[in-house]
Amino acid sequence: MTINRYKLVLEYDGGNFCGWQKQAISQEKTLKNHLPSIERTLETAIFKLIKESPKLFCAGRTDAGVHAWGQVIHFDLNKKFSPYKLTHAINSYLNQSNLITKDGEVVDENFHARFSATKRHYRYIIINRRARPIIDKDRVWHVPVPLDIQKMQEGAALLLGTHDFSSFRDAQCQSKSAIRTISSLLINKEEDKIIIEISAKSFLHHMVRNIVGTLVKIGINKIPANSILEILAAKNRPASGPNAPAYGLYFLKVEY
Amino acid sequence: MTINRYKLVLEYDGGNFCGWQKQAISQEKTLKNHLPSIERTLETAIFKLIKESPKLFCAGRTDAGVHAWGQVIHFDLNKKFSPYKLTHAINSYLNQSNLITKDGEVVDENFHARFSATKRHYRYIIINRRARPIIDKDRVWHVPVPLDIQKMQEGAALLLGTHDFSSFRDAQCQSKSAIRTISSLLINKEEDKIIIEISAKSFLHHMVRNIVGTLVKIGINKIPANSILEILAAKNRPASGPNAPAYGLYFLKVEY
Repeated sequence: MTINRYKLVLEYDGGNFCGWQKQAISQEKTLKNHLPSIERTLETAIFKLIKESPKLFCAGRTDAGVHAWGQVIHFDLNKKFSPYKLTHAINSYLNQSNLITKDGEVVDENFHARFSATKRHYRYIIINRRARPIIDKDRVWHVPVPLDIQKMQEGAALLLGTHDFSSFRDAQCQSKSAIRTISSLLINKEEDKIIIEISAKSFLHHMVRNIVGTLVKIGINKIPANSILEILAAKNRPASGPNAPAYGLYFLKVEY
Repeated sequence: MTINRYKLVLEYDGGNFCGWQKQAISQEKTLKNHLPSIERTLETAIFKLIKESPKLFCAGRTDAGVHAWGQVIHFDLNKKFSPYKLTHAINSYLNQSNLITKDGEVVDENFHARFSATKRHYRYIIINRRARPIIDKDRVWHVPVPLDIQKMQEGAALLLGTHDFSSFRDAQCQSKSAIRTISSLLINKEEDKIIIEISAKSFLHHMVRNIVGTLVKIGINKIPANSILEILAAKNRPASGPNAPAYGLYFLKVEY
């Protein structure tokens, strides 16, 4: 039988979900103010539409609160659809949710949303001013103390390249190796926002948010920029800074 | 008696207000799903704080739905405050609203938020893609048909400078003259957004939104870019395009 494999690009507002991964239904209903998972929301829409329940594979399992501009998933269906019609139809079943498919294509059976990815891009947005955010409420991390961007950039430069990122991984991270390669880490100021863009083939659990939390600690002069070297060398989570809030993080794009 | 004149910079989410201007209380409660005005919300906070009810003057009376990054107001108080303390105290009374004071200063009695302004800057954000917006829901105008930015830029160039903008003013506009000078009108694409930035000493009622609606009509090839010349010459509102939705418009900044 021929496999019909579809790749979709998703956008979602993470504040409305308990994260990518589905929980036991009973648990999902009691957890995090009854927020649904992205996985189950999409599964439900696909099942309503075509009465099939394919297993969904995503490029990165985002946590509760984390937004996506360009999450990528794939799944197999028995039926054949034009990607244009399929995404349109799925969206009509997602109408009441804070999730949408932006794009879709038919891919060959060797494509895997997670394992074929060659680069993942994340963006983290900080609003750096005294007044709390209004227009960007629930979309940015509010840091009221002035941040020294130049020092943050100095710290960021030391994270570039291949390192053991044990100090920046969550205790629950299941990856065998903590070695990762950051290919790009840019920090820019736009009006009262500080925008951090970070790219790598793959990341450890909480790695981006732990890096941001550590760079903010540098930006408020609590630790010097070159303390990044000691933090990396420590290979121990408590050595780095706090985990930056989920709602400032955007899963931007995946390259294949 | 000395006048204590204060200038404040405001940010607000226009979707939560019936616009700047207060209505009769009875009317405000029935209009637009009971949304309050920005003016009354601020008056109430100031009165709760210092038991004074100064008249508030703003740089531009935004309509229902229009957002502000940098609306400017001024008012006079009998009491003297440090601007830092005043804005902080006002914000504590605005805690439940979608409005905040970002900045404050003491100004001399010749300063007038409306009449002293030398330049006003607006931004209009369009999301130009098939899928409806999720992360930017209620913050952008969704145009699903591809827009030809180059043609929009050609049209925009013809609006620069001093013209009679009668074709771009609302029927209810109360300004005596329709002559205005657009000093800058830029259109840029950032990912799937089209960002229009427009500056002038002052604008007519609905002028920015009518200009955006007309540029979009050019962008979807309904009218050619140089039809701007005929529209200006017509001096008649029906000659131009539709009024773009309020929720894509941001009152960005005022110069004095």
